[in-house]
Amino acid sequence: MLITLEGIEGSGKSTQIKRITAHLEKQGRRCVTTREPGDTPIGKKIRAILLDPENSELTSLAELFLYAADRAQHLGERVLPRLAAGDVVVSDRFFDATTAYQGYARGLDLEVIEKIHGMVLKGLRPDLTLLLDLPPEVGLGRAISAIESGDRTVSESRFEQEALAFHEKVRAGYLTLARREPDRFVIIDATLSPDEVTEAVTRAIDERLART
Amino acid sequence: MLITLEGIEGSGKSTQIKRITAHLEKQGRRCVTTREPGDTPIGKKIRAILLDPENSELTSLAELFLYAADRAQHLGERVLPRLAAGDVVVSDRFFDATTAYQGYARGLDLEVIEKIHGMVLKGLRPDLTLLLDLPPEVGLGRAISAIESGDRTVSESRFEQEALAFHEKVRAGYLTLARREPDRFVIIDATLSPDEVTEAVTRAIDERLART
Ligand SMILES: Nc1ncnc2c1ncn2[C@@H]1O[C@H](COP(=O)(O)OP(=O)(O)OP(=O)(O)O)[C@@H](O)[C@H]1O
Ligand SMILES: Nc1ncnc2c1ncn2[C@@H]1O[C@H](COP(=O)(O)OP(=O)(O)OP(=O)(O)O)[C@@H](O)[C@H]1O
Ligand SMILES: [Mg+2]
Ligand SMILES: [Mg+2]
Repeated sequence: MLITLEGIEGSGKSTQIKRITAHLEKQGRRCVTTREPGDTPIGKKIRAILLDPENSELTSLAELFLYAADRAQHLGERVLPRLAAGDVVVSDRFFDATTAYQGYARGLDLEVIEKIHGMVLKGLRPDLTLLLDLPPEVGLGRAISAIESGDRTVSESRFEQEALAFHEKVRAGYLTLARREPDRFVIIDATLSPDEVTEAVTRAIDERLART
Repeated sequence: MLITLEGIEGSGKSTQIKRITAHLEKQGRRCVTTREPGDTPIGKKIRAILLDPENSELTSLAELFLYAADRAQHLGERVLPRLAAGDVVVSDRFFDATTAYQGYARGLDLEVIEKIHGMVLKGLRPDLTLLLDLPPEVGLGRAISAIESGDRTVSESRFEQEALAFHEKVRAGYLTLARREPDRFVIIDATLSPDEVTEAVTRAIDERLART
């Protein structure tokens, strides 16, 4: 079982993923969390290139291939072995993030993106994708508060420096994807309190697990 | 005008590329040399991941995408601007190397490789590709002598550590490509002396230039 969490910055993915693990482990399931980009030693090196603000020359196509490289490595080294062992794998972002950010927001050819997804995923699809949806100004506001309180550094994300309009496009892109695959996606109102979001998220997971 | 040099390790690409530049500049042409992987600041970081023997976990698909990322960056940042400015661009390896090494030798799906080439090149094709052909034992022998004489370090190439059989496949792959596109490729006997190879290489270039 593969569960993915998607949503713009500050939507609460990292906050919820910890609670999801706790919830699944309480049910006696073996559960492993992972994230993209960067959850393998090689992925960390790729992530460093992607997120370094110095690399402003990075062409959008090169960026797309770096994400694909990270994903291929992530799948081969982490996700597929864990799935094969019967674990529940919960990933903080996955391939939909590329479609939303590089495709819908940055305007890269969606057909090219789909082709690359096909090469990397080879038919694999998450069993459940939780879209934590909220207006960008709310999400970015949270992210900025976290920076101010010292929980994270400004340089951590190149994307947070993008204009609000960009994040609006990402959000709209995610919603388009969710409407296109209603069986896979569950849209969660991420403006609610952390506990209320956890409530909705765990309910969606339990319903999905009941169907297997 | 885009000229590419291909061939296994030790076939003499780096040796010849300097002479090609001198030859073209003597004719009053503006000429720029470049190489793959790694001829942009971002490419150097990608190259470091590709060639680091520590990264033995690198999946072959992730490797393929890293080469694609480097190539997209190389094209966008270096090759296309120089071609647009009317320069002759001479590249030490280009996309045929991926087909030969990852495709024919390592056995990755040639269709996937072709699709990625299509995304990156968007119709661009070298005007001339010089294949420096020779038996791997000769090429590797030269490369090893260069290491022993201190001209290069052992860690410079992960590929040099591959078995001879692998390099035989690379060579055969290159020859297959050359036979498939006889108008673009010129096969050069790279077992000849450096001066004789230069003679053949510059003749091929001059003939190609005469046709434009
Ligand atoms: N439901 C919520 N209500 C209010 N604040 C929240 C909520 N969920 C998370 N936060 C806070 O918002 C900030 C961002 O949350 P979190 O790091 O979980 O988001 P994220 O989706 O992982 O962001 P990123 O994409 O940048 O990693 C944190 O400081 C977190 O404590
Ligand atoms: N025609 C030749 N005859 C004999 N030795 C040669 C010839 N051409 C090059 N060499 C020597 O062989 C070694 C490898 O040559 P070179 O570095 O030009 O090959 P290369 O194709 O660039 O290899 P690599 O793919 O490893 O970069 C060098 O020491 C060089 O001096
Ligand atoms: Mg997070
Ligand atoms: Mg060389």
